[in-house]
Amino acid sequence: MALIEPRVLKGFRDSLPDAELARQAMVSVLTRTFESFGFLPIDTPVLEYAEILLGKGGGETDKQVYRFLDHGRRDVAMRYDLTVPFARFVSAHRHEIPLPFKRYHIAKVWRGENTQRGRYREFYQCDFDTVGVDSASADLEILLLMGASMRSLGIERFRIHVAHRGALTSLLGRLGLAERSVEILRVIDKMAKIGGEAVASQLASLAPAEAVEAILRFVTPGATFDETLAAMSAAVGGEDPSLARLARIRDSFRSLGVLGSYHLDPSITRGLDYYTGIVFETFLTDLPQIGSVCSGGRYNDLTSLFASERMPGVGASIGLDRLQAALSELGAAQAGASTVHALVLCVDDDLDAHYHAIAAQLRREGLSAEVYPEKAKLPRQFQFAEKKGILYAIICGGDEKAKGVASIKDIRTRESRDDVPENDIASTLKQMLRR
Amino acid sequence: MALIEPRVLKGFRDSLPDAELARQAMVSVLTRTFESFGFLPIDTPVLEYAEILLGKGGGETDKQVYRFLDHGRRDVAMRYDLTVPFARFVSAHRHEIPLPFKRYHIAKVWRGENTQRGRYREFYQCDFDTVGVDSASADLEILLLMGASMRSLGIERFRIHVAHRGALTSLLGRLGLAERSVEILRVIDKMAKIGGEAVASQLASLAPAEAVEAILRFVTPGATFDETLAAMSAAVGGEDPSLARLARIRDSFRSLGVLGSYHLDPSITRGLDYYTGIVFETFLTDLPQIGSVCSGGRYNDLTSLFASERMPGVGASIGLDRLQAALSELGAAQAGASTVHALVLCVDDDLDAHYHAIAAQLRREGLSAEVYPEKAKLPRQFQFAEKKGILYAIICGGDEKAKGVASIKDIRTRESRDDVPENDIASTLKQMLRR
Repeated sequence: MALIEPRVLKGFRDSLPDAELARQAMVSVLTRTFESFGFLPIDTPVLEYAEILLGKGGGETDKQVYRFLDHGRRDVAMRYDLTVPFARFVSAHRHEIPLPFKRYHIAKVWRGENTQRGRYREFYQCDFDTVGVDSASADLEILLLMGASMRSLGIERFRIHVAHRGALTSLLGRLGLAERSVEILRVIDKMAKIGGEAVASQLASLAPAEAVEAILRFVTPGATFDETLAAMSAAVGGEDPSLARLARIRDSFRSLGVLGSYHLDPSITRGLDYYTGIVFETFLTDLPQIGSVCSGGRYNDLTSLFASERMPGVGASIGLDRLQAALSELGAAQAGASTVHALVLCVDDDLDAHYHAIAAQLRREGLSAEVYPEKAKLPRQFQFAEKKGILYAIICGGDEKAKGVASIKDIRTRESRDDVPENDIASTLKQMLRR
Repeated sequence: MALIEPRVLKGFRDSLPDAELARQAMVSVLTRTFESFGFLPIDTPVLEYAEILLGKGGGETDKQVYRFLDHGRRDVAMRYDLTVPFARFVSAHRHEIPLPFKRYHIAKVWRGENTQRGRYREFYQCDFDTVGVDSASADLEILLLMGASMRSLGIERFRIHVAHRGALTSLLGRLGLAERSVEILRVIDKMAKIGGEAVASQLASLAPAEAVEAILRFVTPGATFDETLAAMSAAVGGEDPSLARLARIRDSFRSLGVLGSYHLDPSITRGLDYYTGIVFETFLTDLPQIGSVCSGGRYNDLTSLFASERMPGVGASIGLDRLQAALSELGAAQAGASTVHALVLCVDDDLDAHYHAIAAQLRREGLSAEVYPEKAKLPRQFQFAEKKGILYAIICGGDEKAKGVASIKDIRTRESRDDVPENDIASTLKQMLRR
């Protein structure tokens, strides 16, 4: 029979042990951080009715969605984000979940995107949201949790850029440009990518020169949070609820001693219409070119497709793959290497049970251990241990077994400790590991 | 606009926080156990080329597979198990992974099965395998790990039924029934479900009466491992490598002091042709009716579809959903309840920053804490804490803030500790939690 080539689809990847251990370590740190803030995990199906995932539909996303007819000729699709399934989830379980509801969801999503830009068609999203409340305190908590998440991963040099969609909308209203606000916001959103000049020239076709100038002045941050906020207030003129909320959040940052991690940056608009309140993006000081690693904002109504009751919320999404790549570039990656402490070599396969007993002794002491599963030349077994990143080898032949001892060898240095009494293997190895 | 009903597809489920926490706790315990034996995690794509997942195809499984044409008109499918993707993975990464290779993989799979039997179309599988070696030691390790997995989940009352496909095949050869062995094995596999009499009558159409009698005698276990093995040897007659391996594994069980957890049961055949060596199933003593919670066996050649080099292996699969249901029925479920220790109430929303500072103090001490995100009547906030299973409420109004104190209230008993100095909230709460 002809062999089949063991290839994966374009845009898809296998995850080998080192990568998978690193990913799991990152997820486990984030999970603990989220739960320490009272955010709890949920999960939803990968497949949903297409009408639920695509809703009003017709957008760019639709073309990228994996959609097909199932065995029952139902029109189904694979989730392409975690926001729409969350909206469906909140509507379906409205009476089982206590509001305000805080959840996180870390799971794969699928988009049949163009892979030429280094994008993958299967990737992880990591979302956390608070729904059922519209308050400065909820906004603040998401922003604090974003900072705590970065720090929990060992990232100290980051800055969270914050803005408010409402402030810019007020300004555009004042400039008589309310009708063009969606287009104008989309242009401003490209500021970090294409720069101020390109934004100015694109705005020129949407607004008169003096309005363009006012907009550009507005979206250019000042030296400090206070200075920027003052300039925004002057531009909007008078009282504005968006600016009042920003001021309130600023006061809390200051009183909590974390103001330095947050940067008021009115050029942040987040492309989507979806957002109605604060919006934010997170940049790593040492890797600005990778773009935002954690973004989001406040929205008016999560569940409008499914329910008439309004469901406001605020949430953020961490780009896990991007962040994992960044961590390894920064050398701050979570220890993802093998955690196997010892390999019990197989010198004589009549001693199988003895080898497994030694491994069991190590495990009882909290160490991880594996047994080489068949007799093989010792260099081959050492090479195996090296490749797998195992730290120590335990060696015991027939003579040693008869004397009730074994030797422990450091795989890297090849130094060895001989005649270790068989009941002391775990304690001796622990001593050696502590050095 | 008409609202869309927020329903999920038949056979699919949402996972709410309590269920998801319980699942995560179970996975985390298993993960630690697997890694303590040197098994490391991998992951593979959910979507693969259909020819890879379906291989020779044509079986019952094919009809259940979610299969469609993607945007590039590639014939793709969602994985329906973790074995075929693992075979593809091993072939693709043959030169990157050190053999013997021990991996675990915990992930969702999809089958468009009939949901009437209480089956789900989206469910978790949890597989662990050692490939690249055919030895008694590798078989033994998988069997030891199965036992360790059960114990790590708090299950002490279980029994792992072991058999060897080779022994039964030898017997059938001796009885002149080699050509009908696949059919006969399938009938015997139903023993636990349909009972000895039904098996006997189905065998009657496949073999002469005295052969049926010999088969039935063979597959009926004796009182002990030793007795059963002796009866099997007598039936097969003389030396047999399958029985020699079973004897070797039995000796190791005995010397490791775990023989009592294993039961030699020649009626275990595992339906699939795939298995060629030892086979096994795991039953919970207190819930025999749910069937096997962990099954598997040894196979000759994992990667025959993709490579000419033989790749032997041995592995097991835990039915996670079934085991999770069993754990909760046994009252041995991993603590899946909310782990939020304290809710900081919002008495006055001008004190937002103070509330978040109190929560931060608790988190620094390793506790989890959340802030009620807006001003609301206290009974409503208490009710929220109760619903979410939060243990304590921290209460601080303007007067208390001025005095530098807060009170801590036990949500269940409503007992309260007043005038706790604000810097002592975490230490006081820790004392209260220890009681």
